Amino acid sequence: MKPILVFQTDFTYKEGAVSSMYGVVKSVDRELEIMDGTHELPQYDTWSASYRLYQSLPFWPEGTIYVSVVDPGVGTARRACVARTSSGHYVVTPDNGTLTHIDKYIGIEEVREIDERVNRLRGKDTEEVAIFHGRDLFGYTAARLASGIIDYEGVGPAYPVSEIVRHPLLEPVIEPGHVSGIFEIDDPNFGNLWTNIPTRAFIDAGFAYGEELYVRIRHEGREVFSERTAFVKSFGYVEKGSPLVYNNELMRIGMAVSQGSLTRTYGLGYGPDWTVEFTIDSRERERKE
Amino acid sequence: MKPILVFQTDFTYKEGAVSSMYGVVKSVDRELEIMDGTHELPQYDTWSASYRLYQSLPFWPEGTIYVSVVDPGVGTARRACVARTSSGHYVVTPDNGTLTHIDKYIGIEEVREIDERVNRLRGKDTEEVAIFHGRDLFGYTAARLASGIIDYEGVGPAYPVSEIVRHPLLEPVIEPGHVSGIFEIDDPNFGNLWTNIPTRAFIDAGFAYGEELYVRIRHEGREVFSERTAFVKSFGYVEKGSPLVYNNELMRIGMAVSQGSLTRTYGLGYGPDWTVEFTIDSRERERKE
Amino acid sequence: MKPILVFQTDFTYKEGAVSSMYGVVKSVDRELEIMDGTHELPQYDTWSASYRLYQSLPFWPEGTIYVSVVDPGVGTARRACVARTSSGHYVVTPDNGTLTHIDKYIGIEEVREIDERVNRLRGKDTEEVAIFHGRDLFGYTAARLASGIIDYEGVGPAYPVSEIVRHPLLEPVIEPGHVSGIFEIDDPNFGNLWTNIPTRAFIDAGFAYGEELYVRIRHEGREVFSERTAFVKSFGYVEKGSPLVYNNELMRIGMAVSQGSLTRTYGLGYGPDWTVEFTIDSRERERKE
Repeated sequence: MKPILVFQTDFTYKEGAVSSMYGVVKSVDRELEIMDGTHELPQYDTWSASYRLYQSLPFWPEGTIYVSVVDPGVGTARRACVARTSSGHYVVTPDNGTLTHIDKYIGIEEVREIDERVNRLRGKDTEEVAIFHGRDLFGYTAARLASGIIDYEGVGPAYPVSEIVRHPLLEPVIEPGHVSGIFEIDDPNFGNLWTNIPTRAFIDAGFAYGEELYVRIRHEGREVFSERTAFVKSFGYVEKGSPLVYNNELMRIGMAVSQGSLTRTYGLGYGPDWTVEFTIDSRERERKE
Repeated sequence: MKPILVFQTDFTYKEGAVSSMYGVVKSVDRELEIMDGTHELPQYDTWSASYRLYQSLPFWPEGTIYVSVVDPGVGTARRACVARTSSGHYVVTPDNGTLTHIDKYIGIEEVREIDERVNRLRGKDTEEVAIFHGRDLFGYTAARLASGIIDYEGVGPAYPVSEIVRHPLLEPVIEPGHVSGIFEIDDPNFGNLWTNIPTRAFIDAGFAYGEELYVRIRHEGREVFSERTAFVKSFGYVEKGSPLVYNNELMRIGMAVSQGSLTRTYGLGYGPDWTVEFTIDSRERERKE
Repeated sequence: MKPILVFQTDFTYKEGAVSSMYGVVKSVDRELEIMDGTHELPQYDTWSASYRLYQSLPFWPEGTIYVSVVDPGVGTARRACVARTSSGHYVVTPDNGTLTHIDKYIGIEEVREIDERVNRLRGKDTEEVAIFHGRDLFGYTAARLASGIIDYEGVGPAYPVSEIVRHPLLEPVIEPGHVSGIFEIDDPNFGNLWTNIPTRAFIDAGFAYGEELYVRIRHEGREVFSERTAFVKSFGYVEKGSPLVYNNELMRIGMAVSQGSLTRTYGLGYGPDWTVEFTIDSRERERKE
């Protein structure tokens, strides 16, 4: 079977852009299977695009072609590319930071710049080139690749993986009984926040499920949250409305409010300016022993 | 052909959870067909989940596997189950009230608890279990069932249908010329409200299309709407902006505002506290005769 | 292969209507392929429905059946129809203005009124007819047509193409150095506005990429925007937050704010009351020469 195409964009289903993009794919090859990844990503936010790719791509079958269209520099000198990952997936995207997390946590084997002279849909009755690269360049190239009209070499010339545009990634600090990091991303629906701290490292540092720990959150250095919070296996272990610390779906430490919204309740956000610090409450532990 | 998988969740397409859930399905079996049912259901609202299932499931082909992920008790003792309905559909869901309407109006023949030791996706590099049951438990089990990797018995042990968690359902009161019930659900987009009153019973009680009737709506006993309102075959039969009574898509009595929103115009909602009473305007009828 | 069905509606995915509509299609023929076009169109807005159809339909393969359900007159005397376009597509829609742009810019060869006695899904246990035409009439008929259960003649009787309900369309005024038109539609996500002015005519009138021009926007005759604005090949050519004039995805002149929202920044909208006027800045050109 031909590879699946998965699309993530900062467009919305409320107008016709997604439909015309998918129509182009189906016009290239009627048999291709299109799946929606994520739409309505924060606009122009290549950091979110990078994170969402990392969050979902690894769960798709090898060979799947992911198309990411978050493109604040559309029409400028930024490269349009197709990356091949160490996991055997392909990512069709503007090279604008969207490959950051995939590069770091999964690995990119090769990257090729899309040759627009070959892999671009032209308007039918004009030499003018339309501005919609998601439809005419990224979707079109992905469809040609999935269909076998071009092979990976046919995308265009390879360039050094080291030249891929990357956002800076911050590493957490792990010490026994004390771990700090940042909130990397939110869940915009439930209002959870996800840190850059691997749960395995967190547990190795001495934190244990079922215990309360100290959580201190700072925004641009200023303390905005300081509470004893339970580290639990799931949301249902604390009372409705209470904050909690948990192992998220990517095996990293997350924070939430049970049946509520952490970001809205406490006015919190994500990004390098949002740091979080977890400390073991040693007195509680002594009491127990 | 293999059964279709239809998903309804309280997640959003604005982040990567739906995509990773669907990726797992496709990784189980590339051939499986996935359809979106409903997303962005009111969060943690198992009543809505139950109603939406009832609203849409019967229209899908026999054998279709519906996956419902509205799960306020994720990770706690609530059962994860697969129900087989009298209509020959399957529902994969937390057993938390989501099966209420299907059980009452369609019937459940058998229910099995998902055996997590067999039907759960493990993380690749850790013994830790991630919290995302929609992806690792419900979606994964549904995919294995649809693919034929397991049969229905392979889901896990059956338990008595009588043990299924149910929300209380209120019955309408039907008398000649006078019918009362509750608003069970809204249409969040158009602002319509749907009662628990079957249109057939309503008409048998003497109400007739084209006539005006008295409508009285109470919230927690307090009257919030009291107006003569037309009972019509469709929205277009009253003036734009006017309220109306109609036969909804599930053959129950609904109320709406023509080309407007009933819930927003009158500040109305749904649930057991929202009662509605319809009375025939006998004077109008006499005038006609 | 059977034709693809593409749906555009003013429903939302947040309740069960889309799902039940698609379930009916799959119950007619399990093999049919359903694609989402556009959902959550502005409610009852047949102008938007018409524009979105025009924006996306031409990119789908010949034979594709588009189903448009924006139906303020549901249940009244408005016709339910299937149009066959000059491009070889089909459109299943209420005949209420939704065919305006397709008729004008692509052409309609033939139109047939859906014979509801044949092509309508009846409720299973009642003679009552439900109000949900998207599900029981439009979706159902489209599925029967795609499946080959009926051919195009089987839809119902043809009626004169001249009887199709049309919205008035305004033509732009093109003169050397001076072009005026209206904003026909917005991008509700990014806040761009699209005019009715073909980019080819605009360039033929003397406007050139890379130059600044005068833009004057009026709402009901009152000036609401008057600025020198750059005409550029893409958003990235002006500073973040600046307005710009560009060639949109349909080869017409659009306006946007780079990485911002034109409609929200300047409080602008679309429709016949929103006129826009572009004038060449001859002094700038002289300076250059």
